[in-house]
Parts: sequence; structure tokens; C-alpha cells
Amino acid sequence: MFLVEGNKTIKEIPSSGYRIKEIFSVNSDSLSVESSLITKISPSELKKISFLQHPKDSVAVCELKEERIVENNLTQLVLDGIQDPGNLGTIIRLADWFGIPQIICSEDTVDLYNPKVIQASMGSFLRVNLVYQNLENFMHESDAAIIGTDMDGVSFYDYPFPTQFNLVLGNEGNGIRPEIEKLLTDKITIPRFGKSQATESLNVSMAAGIILGQIFSKK
Amino acid sequence: MFLVEGNKTIKEIPSSGYRIKEIFSVNSDSLSVESSLITKISPSELKKISFLQHPKDSVAVCELKEERIVENNLTQLVLDGIQDPGNLGTIIRLADWFGIPQIICSEDTVDLYNPKVIQASMGSFLRVNLVYQNLENFMHESDAAIIGTDMDGVSFYDYPFPTQFNLVLGNEGNGIRPEIEKLLTDKITIPRFGKSQATESLNVSMAAGIILGQIFSKK
Repeated sequence: MFLVEGNKTIKEIPSSGYRIKEIFSVNSDSLSVESSLITKISPSELKKISFLQHPKDSVAVCELKEERIVENNLTQLVLDGIQDPGNLGTIIRLADWFGIPQIICSEDTVDLYNPKVIQASMGSFLRVNLVYQNLENFMHESDAAIIGTDMDGVSFYDYPFPTQFNLVLGNEGNGIRPEIEKLLTDKITIPRFGKSQATESLNVSMAAGIILGQIFSKK
Repeated sequence: MFLVEGNKTIKEIPSSGYRIKEIFSVNSDSLSVESSLITKISPSELKKISFLQHPKDSVAVCELKEERIVENNLTQLVLDGIQDPGNLGTIIRLADWFGIPQIICSEDTVDLYNPKVIQASMGSFLRVNLVYQNLENFMHESDAAIIGTDMDGVSFYDYPFPTQFNLVLGNEGNGIRPEIEKLLTDKITIPRFGKSQATESLNVSMAAGIILGQIFSKK
């Protein structure tokens, strides 16, 4: 089981592959779900259940979905050890924005059902399919290009993105693992226009957004 | 006065316009600053001073810098009521990455010296000039194009960015204020490729990154 907070997202659940088991709500007026699922609670009870500092109207207890990989996607994201729940949530939200149907996560990527991931995804977890896989096996079996970000890669502005590809994003501190890096077919980088050498590299979810923005400029 | 945490950023302060008043440190080996500025402290003392959950090596107390507007920048960001410290820090980091020298903030934008802003900027606040201004006055006096993001704008992929412009980013919940929106010369939008109407709009700092990535593809 996992928690989904807020009527806005809870309303979307019935049309996704997920099932609601129970709802605890201070105001369920806008929810069009079976009333037998809903338990009325007080704001102070909601505050105790919720993971949010300022809890919303309702909390839904949902059943986990069985993982099922979808084949033949044109664009996929591949996450190699993303640890920060906020980053994973933001990346799911980006995938949803750009219509990317699936994200392949390494087995040590932060759990999709972490409440902070669900929250940061702003409901996008309902529309993007996540699967946790042994990345080396996955990459060996993939026919599509496997593109990774690397300081030594070619500028992503000059790289002709193929029609079908996987975009690999690495861990926040350590980047892409050497075993995975070996299996990349192409390496790209976002050129820095600022002149200071002291400038930190971009956060992984920001880098993903900038690259996806550029890829979709050609569609 | 304001706080800067971590030797990595503290080392950069002397070459910026900021001055260090005092440093409290558990390990100052890598800092090449006057030793009279440094007070040795214990890790538990550092934990008490620090705003971080996992404090770093040192904390520097710095003097605020007098605000001074720099004229004739080719690209500037203009923030209309950004409230989240993480967003402001991330936007400063983006400006630094893309070599944008100045950010004009409305008077109600979150304070640059908020410890969470300084932290999220990852040292980039040392290289990007922020000024807090009455935005209406600023925009009336600007000769350059004033571009804002708006759901009804033209796709930013099709918009020919002029050589000199201000890019306006609005408040997280409410967007750009009507008074400010009236003064925009151009409106752009990031098209959504995902098909669901339920998809939330992108976070303001992510939108900024995607737009800047596209602008700089032409440079």
C-alpha cells in the first residue's frame, strides 16, 4: 500500500492503473468515488496521517501496481541510482510533460512509492510507467541508442538525437556508474556559457529538463 | 550579515564583491583566508550554528553587499514574486550556468540572503548580481524586449528571441501579476507534449531552465 494526498490527484486515480483501498478525508465533495471507501476525519486527524506540513483535504491508501515493462517506446528515461525523492518526482513530472511513457530505474534508485516522490510528481506517477530493473541486463538487451550525460560528451545542441533512444541520468553525486557508462552508445553534455570554473554542474533533474526541451524542439 | 556554509563556497568569497567578517570552522585547512578571521569550533558547536541537517566543515559570517544595478545586459531575468527559497537558489544557479549577469527581483521576491536561497544557489550568488526593484518602474524604463511565460503565448520553439531582452518569471502559484503582465512586450509558452489535461504546469525554475536551454542553442 502507499499514500496519495490531495483530492486533485486522488480524483485521477480511478482512470489510472491504480486502485484506491480507502480514503480519509476532511472534505470529499469533489471526489466521485464510491462513498463506502471514504471515512470522514477531522483536520487534526488528517494532520497526524499526512506526510505534509500543510496537509490537503484527503489522503488515499492505494494498492501497489504490479510492475510491467512496456516495449518499443520511442523515448525512455533510464535512471542510474537517483537517490533524492524530489529529483525522482520532478523527473516523473517532466516525463509526463513531454509525453515519455516509461522510466527504467536501476534497482537502487529511490522507491517510487516514497511519499516524497509521489508528492513531488504532482500526480504524474499515474501517467508514467516506472519499472525497476538490472540496468546492465536492460541495456544489453536494448536495440535503441543509449545516450548518457558526460562532461566529455558532445554538445547536446549539436547531437542529432535518433528517433528511438534511451536517455540515461546518473546519481546526484557520482553520476553514471562505470559499468553502465561502458554500455552507452553516445555521450552528450550541456555546455556551460558562464565563464567561472567554480560553477557547479546542474542538478540532474534540471539537466534532464533542458535536454528534453531541446529534443522536443525538433518534434 | 548573512551565513555561507561549506569551505567550497567560502573559498570563492574573497574573489567576489562580498567580505567575510568571521569564520567558524571544524576544518579550515583548505581555506586561504587570514587566520585571524577563523575560530576553531567542535562538530557539535557547528551543528548548533548551521542551518543544514548535515553541516559541512565551516560557516562564514559575511557582510551584505550594497545593491547596485548593472545596465546594458543582453539577457536578464526578472522575478515577479518568487516565494520559494529553493526556486530562487535554483534560478540563480541557472543564471550562473548560462552566464546571465543580473536578476531583477520584485520587492516581494524571497530574500537573497535567506539561508536556503544561499544554499540552493551552490555558490552561484557570488557571480550573479541580484537587485530588488519596483518592477513596474523598472519595466517602464527598459528599452529591451520584456518576455513573459503565459499559457496563451507562442511556442518558445517558434519565438525568435531578440538579442537583448528580459525574461519575466512569475510567482509559483499565481504566475505574473496582471499589472506586470500588461507591460510584457512578448508572451511565450512551453508546449506540453503529454496528452493528459491533468498534467500540472512545470515548476517555475524548471520552466526557466528549459527556456534558457533553448535560447542558448542559438548562441
